[in-house]
Amino acid sequence: MFETAELGRTITKSDFKRTAPALRQELLELQDTLHKNKRFPVIVVFGGVDGGGKGETVSLLNAWMDPRWLITRAYDEPGDDERERPEFWKYWRDLPARGRIGMFLSAWYSRPVLDRVHGRSDEATFLKQLERIVGFERALARDGALILKFWMHLSRDAQEHRLRNLENDPLTNARVGERDWEHWRMYDKFIGAAEQLVSRTNRGLAPWTIVEGSDPNCRAITVTSLLRDALARRLDTPELNGGKNGSAQTETPSAPDSKPDGYSVAKSITVLSGLEMSRKLEKAPYKKQLVELQARLHRLHLLAKAQNVSSVLVFEGPDAAGKGGAIRRINESLDARNYQVHGIAAPTEEELARHYLWRFWRRLPRDGHIAIFDRSWYGRVLVERIEGFASEDDWRRSYAEINDFEEQLIEHGTVLVKCWIHITEDEQLARFKLREKTPYKRWKLTEEDWRNRDKWSDYEAAVNDMVQYTSTSTAPWTLVEGNDKRYARVKVVQTFCERLSAALGDPLD
Amino acid sequence: MFETAELGRTITKSDFKRTAPALRQELLELQDTLHKNKRFPVIVVFGGVDGGGKGETVSLLNAWMDPRWLITRAYDEPGDDERERPEFWKYWRDLPARGRIGMFLSAWYSRPVLDRVHGRSDEATFLKQLERIVGFERALARDGALILKFWMHLSRDAQEHRLRNLENDPLTNARVGERDWEHWRMYDKFIGAAEQLVSRTNRGLAPWTIVEGSDPNCRAITVTSLLRDALARRLDTPELNGGKNGSAQTETPSAPDSKPDGYSVAKSITVLSGLEMSRKLEKAPYKKQLVELQARLHRLHLLAKAQNVSSVLVFEGPDAAGKGGAIRRINESLDARNYQVHGIAAPTEEELARHYLWRFWRRLPRDGHIAIFDRSWYGRVLVERIEGFASEDDWRRSYAEINDFEEQLIEHGTVLVKCWIHITEDEQLARFKLREKTPYKRWKLTEEDWRNRDKWSDYEAAVNDMVQYTSTSTAPWTLVEGNDKRYARVKVVQTFCERLSAALGDPLD
Repeated sequence: MFETAELGRTITKSDFKRTAPALRQELLELQDTLHKNKRFPVIVVFGGVDGGGKGETVSLLNAWMDPRWLITRAYDEPGDDERERPEFWKYWRDLPARGRIGMFLSAWYSRPVLDRVHGRSDEATFLKQLERIVGFERALARDGALILKFWMHLSRDAQEHRLRNLENDPLTNARVGERDWEHWRMYDKFIGAAEQLVSRTNRGLAPWTIVEGSDPNCRAITVTSLLRDALARRLDTPELNGGKNGSAQTETPSAPDSKPDGYSVAKSITVLSGLEMSRKLEKAPYKKQLVELQARLHRLHLLAKAQNVSSVLVFEGPDAAGKGGAIRRINESLDARNYQVHGIAAPTEEELARHYLWRFWRRLPRDGHIAIFDRSWYGRVLVERIEGFASEDDWRRSYAEINDFEEQLIEHGTVLVKCWIHITEDEQLARFKLREKTPYKRWKLTEEDWRNRDKWSDYEAAVNDMVQYTSTSTAPWTLVEGNDKRYARVKVVQTFCERLSAALGDPLD
Repeated sequence: MFETAELGRTITKSDFKRTAPALRQELLELQDTLHKNKRFPVIVVFGGVDGGGKGETVSLLNAWMDPRWLITRAYDEPGDDERERPEFWKYWRDLPARGRIGMFLSAWYSRPVLDRVHGRSDEATFLKQLERIVGFERALARDGALILKFWMHLSRDAQEHRLRNLENDPLTNARVGERDWEHWRMYDKFIGAAEQLVSRTNRGLAPWTIVEGSDPNCRAITVTSLLRDALARRLDTPELNGGKNGSAQTETPSAPDSKPDGYSVAKSITVLSGLEMSRKLEKAPYKKQLVELQARLHRLHLLAKAQNVSSVLVFEGPDAAGKGGAIRRINESLDARNYQVHGIAAPTEEELARHYLWRFWRRLPRDGHIAIFDRSWYGRVLVERIEGFASEDDWRRSYAEINDFEEQLIEHGTVLVKCWIHITEDEQLARFKLREKTPYKRWKLTEEDWRNRDKWSDYEAAVNDMVQYTSTSTAPWTLVEGNDKRYARVKVVQTFCERLSAALGDPLD
């Protein structure tokens, strides 16, 4: 989930200066329209790790916008008037009126996370608190509020670095206390709770955006651009319609001839940009490693069968990424009676007549069996999103539906492995050309494959969102560098071995 | 909550015979349209107490409708194929296609309730299971499914009576086993879990209707009429729009000159019909009881102040029901610095600019204080519903928002008392006439009060729904027979005393 906010995105000072004035002007104009037509309130919630830039971003927004129609609230230890009423009394008290913007720091998400991390609440209590928040935000959103939530993330190292920098600067030194370092030492616990928090409260009407907090320019431009886009979209809508317009991530298209602003530059960096696509494996070590891994997989799969543990493998990736080849390397180790490969193409009439997840539910393996999906339910947030087969409302809410679905697999004890096998645009072109020339491979290449190449950056953005919303500690995505088929195949088989071994408590591993 | 299904509603054999043929024909026609245009699937879920008529109702629907487009599923102990996959696999497998109707018995609600009642799961697990169901139904409803859920209720005595009858009839004797009697002995536990279940899973897109299960004709006509109404409403809608049309309780208006069918007859019986409106108190015992109760209330309120326990009192009822008079009898016992009466009229501009609950949140009392609401947040589901100030979607979802709100009060330790003071239509007329004649009371009577009298039966239906959805074991409604003011005042003061005493663990009571 948070890997999408550890990509080292930066915006240079000059890019920032080039981008900021227009953005600021747009925000002011949108705020003015909002204030004048008073159709809905805007609620902006900031959460995230200490040092992720929550306070700075709120300060910036206060400096950029008209402070008369903007309130900022942060909650410290409750005063008597607050303590003597239900916790949410103070949040209700401070809700902005229609036409105004309210920014909330250390608000309703704060206590649940801190109580959980410090062991003052158990998981059930934590989940109940999150459900209460979902109900609260749903009530506001369905009443018309535009809700944006920003989770400011830093990696463990980046947080340490940031705290040291703040300490070393006399201007900011006072802002770092023992409490911050104590939190830093609990980083892993905090991130675990944060992942649950984001996935449970990331609803269509009140979505989270995870923001990379390490570069001040980048996070400022990201948050302000998203706020601008969300405001612009909602204000253009003649009727309030929370379901379709309540989310924040689709931007208004920029004029094709304009020089990309800082935001576009930052956005073009995705989880895929971070992959070292030059990774490769020579033939000899490949053969040796593959044979060893396949033997290990064979043994593990018999063990899984004996222990009645089922597996579900998901393969996604661009056309010609080598999904089929990787799947075959797995199948070679398995008993054919024990696995089934499901190539997922367009749904049948029977499938179209039901919820899109139905066709995947019905293909779930029995205990001890393996189901391999060559493309999968993620089509909803990839091809269906990009081709417009699913409405934005449909594909946005499917992240939560997918997480629910996978959670049930994992609760049942199923081993779930999700691989995105990636190749670069150039590598795809080379493979397409090879397919054209090779008679027995030509059938694999269609007009559509060529057309899809035009949407390369759309796919990258969709993959980034997919990883952001559906890669969790229990159902993580594995990104596989696929330009070298040998490297990719070994990584895939190895990943499956490791996940199986961990699930089975394999005595030999 | 379940008091709305213990009213002794019956439909005579002749009324049933008069109503059934047309209803059956309508259902068949609607089913045919549904099947032909294949726009959405229909999912009908039955839950409730044993003997409440779930099976019989499903049989009737199977007999009345076209079985080719209807599936019925009931789930016993899971088979191997089911046990070896996540629990919801079998529900997904059996989902009806668009254009078809699926009826589900002992399905996804069954295990959570039974596990909870038998102590095999704790409350946190139970709530988590309910959340999973909410997610499941939301996914289906947002994909277009029309979901209706019927909770077939019997009082403890009615259930015993029914089980005995089944046992005594040789045709049905085999259907009653030790398990049924074991469940009957756990009736109170079961009802406690059922109340949680219904209030947590009663969502706009998948609402529960609580059906009185004791009279076979009545429950058959009720369920089939609601199914007809829901189908008719949804099939008339050119665009699928779950949020506005997913709920089942608004009926299509019947022609004004038609003789009321059995359903209308049954529906006209509400929780208010059951009140013994002739209850009264003579002057002498009234004075004596009131003085004693007021003294007790005075003592309890000082104790509450000392223990920092706050109270919230809600008064609703028809115009001239005597809310103000009852409130004054309470105030006489209280320290004026300690309570505040909030007369709720039309919202101010400041209040209109925010969620409708905002103005009630901000009036919550501090610990040790008392807030008395003369009309309240229930206006949303009473006057706003009936006058059309709130859309159906708005007022329907407010039941859940109100329950959330009150749950937070109760969690905080606030004593919440909700009184509906009722008078009959005749009594109201007499009081209006008296007001006209009495100069110092004339200001109380407006044209609107007279107009409201035309909507008497609408108000009764709205009160019935309000009690059904918002009267819970922790925040129950007290229905006060108000034709005699003395009786009503004593009952109100006594109710507050008893709730305070229970909350404070009063040593003197």
